[in-house]
Amino acid sequence: MEDDRRKRIAILGSTGSIGQQTLEVVRALPDQFRIVGLAAGKNIGLLAKQIEEFRPRFAYSQSDDRQRWSLEDMACHPDVDIVVIAISGKAGLLPTLAAVRAGKNVALANKESLVMAGELITREAILNGAQILPVDSEHSAIWQCINGEPQTPSQIILTASGGPFRLYLPPQLREITVKQALNHPTWQMGNKVTIDSATLMNKGLEVIEAHWLFDMPFDRIKVLVHPQSIIHSMVEFNDGSIKALLSPPDMRFPIQYALSHPERLANPQLPRLDWSHNQNLAFEQPNMDLFPCLKLAIEAGIKGGTYPAVLSGADEMAVELFLSHRIKFTDIPILIEQALCTHQVINSPTLEEIIEADNWARRELSFLT
Amino acid sequence: MEDDRRKRIAILGSTGSIGQQTLEVVRALPDQFRIVGLAAGKNIGLLAKQIEEFRPRFAYSQSDDRQRWSLEDMACHPDVDIVVIAISGKAGLLPTLAAVRAGKNVALANKESLVMAGELITREAILNGAQILPVDSEHSAIWQCINGEPQTPSQIILTASGGPFRLYLPPQLREITVKQALNHPTWQMGNKVTIDSATLMNKGLEVIEAHWLFDMPFDRIKVLVHPQSIIHSMVEFNDGSIKALLSPPDMRFPIQYALSHPERLANPQLPRLDWSHNQNLAFEQPNMDLFPCLKLAIEAGIKGGTYPAVLSGADEMAVELFLSHRIKFTDIPILIEQALCTHQVINSPTLEEIIEADNWARRELSFLT
Repeated sequence: MEDDRRKRIAILGSTGSIGQQTLEVVRALPDQFRIVGLAAGKNIGLLAKQIEEFRPRFAYSQSDDRQRWSLEDMACHPDVDIVVIAISGKAGLLPTLAAVRAGKNVALANKESLVMAGELITREAILNGAQILPVDSEHSAIWQCINGEPQTPSQIILTASGGPFRLYLPPQLREITVKQALNHPTWQMGNKVTIDSATLMNKGLEVIEAHWLFDMPFDRIKVLVHPQSIIHSMVEFNDGSIKALLSPPDMRFPIQYALSHPERLANPQLPRLDWSHNQNLAFEQPNMDLFPCLKLAIEAGIKGGTYPAVLSGADEMAVELFLSHRIKFTDIPILIEQALCTHQVINSPTLEEIIEADNWARRELSFLT
Repeated sequence: MEDDRRKRIAILGSTGSIGQQTLEVVRALPDQFRIVGLAAGKNIGLLAKQIEEFRPRFAYSQSDDRQRWSLEDMACHPDVDIVVIAISGKAGLLPTLAAVRAGKNVALANKESLVMAGELITREAILNGAQILPVDSEHSAIWQCINGEPQTPSQIILTASGGPFRLYLPPQLREITVKQALNHPTWQMGNKVTIDSATLMNKGLEVIEAHWLFDMPFDRIKVLVHPQSIIHSMVEFNDGSIKALLSPPDMRFPIQYALSHPERLANPQLPRLDWSHNQNLAFEQPNMDLFPCLKLAIEAGIKGGTYPAVLSGADEMAVELFLSHRIKFTDIPILIEQALCTHQVINSPTLEEIIEADNWARRELSFLT
């Protein structure tokens, strides 16, 4: 007779930044969580170590041709209580869709799936009784602030660190190196999301995600720069009161909440906000002229159809080109805007049309450069 | 056939600051609330105007000897859904107790009743199914942040503006005039609470109230100075996440929430937080050496028994002496401390013993000065 009440967790993308931090949470709370599945890309060495430590029932590596499991199999397996989608980029889309179609609780750290296919995924989640548990610090904050409130919010205020170049002048922006852009002031993250944070594209993608996660019109989602990254987002209610969620900038907070929801769990390894010395929380409007990616993303979200998929594909390609020193930092929004302008939109697209729009944008950027 | 679903409200202390602001909320939301009772002290002119405008079924004035109603009658009347206790000072104690004993929903703005008789009032509230709805901005914020959370908080962080003399040096404090002390930087309030804000006694009383309202040990209630008064308090949970409630510093927010709870209501007359220009929210530790009232209050709360009643009575008397220019600003904590040191405590006191301790403290201060 087994009486193991621990939640059974599968992590898709276990060797990435979110994957590793999810394992840290599980390691700190072994009475609460059990790893039953691990899937990774090419970092076989780390995956092997993780398998040795956590002894999952299922494992998957992109590099192994003799797989018994696919990502989708793992996402849908009946022995999995929560699927953590920690894969970055468009590779997260199909496993996310498979998991929501299987009615799973999906702890979603992958931005692209909701950006590209938010309509499809949220519809399938409702149809199949799947719950999407946000892992982004911003969306987790919004979710936590909404929990327990009887009415929907009147406004969502997404906070943004503003990235490392918030106070730069246009000529300085042109000269930004890859090394500078990878050095984020408050958050430790993977390369793609770190560059997206520097261009503010990350915040734009989060606006689109918030639109789908919380069924909130775009004109009621505001972005507010908050360089200290202590308030992770805010929600305004119809009486004008605002709730905010604060914690040290550490992804283990939202990861753990997604896993433990609706409960909260004491985790002695997490840092605490320290009020013993003076703290200053600053807020300012984002500079959309200096960081056009934010504006492009919001516009693509409002226009809808295949535009967000084009935005996402073009951005992923542009960031890759920047990281390999083939374009300048300021070329990123220019290339994305060109792709969006050229694109022939399809409204209410199918999954195939979404994927094709993303591919089209990538090809388009290869031609442009 | 009457189909009036408006909540029926009685305001005890309708001509004071909280009373008038409660009427502003009711005036702005006539479809939601109806005034059925108004009670005031000596401001007959204003009370008459309020009666003319709101046409309550019951009215009471302290100055009228031919009363048909007492404060306690009004607090207990079956036609009253919510009793707003907006009386300041110890005069709020008996009506509050009467209301909770009658199982009413009590919107409590009076600090002294919970400070003096927190144990008694909270016990009677539980026994009689009365709900205490906090009206203080701090306690309302804590209440709102706790709502919907499945677990009790690990810590309450009461924010304090720090008052107008936060950055003064000790010699400057001795020379503070009544006029300076009545000029609060962020809140418009009555005289007693404005002076209490300047000495930080107000925050000390709020710590004791928070202890009773949220059943929270004193060592898990922290005070944090936040001069802008935008965050009205915060709650930390066992996972280290913190929820905060923000609004412009305007008492109509917590008053309205106490009346509308669990719903929130749109009120176009309330201001909105404006993020269009840069905002800075600062936090620092309170200076207990400069403002000994805070320390005295917390110590009195921890010791319990009749100490908080002595604290409350001595403070009310000391503030009166300061307002009538008979003692200096810095004498306020000295006199209160002397009363507390001389007092022979009674543990688990009866109502009579609580009232006598308060009276004793007032007499003691008359002797000392």
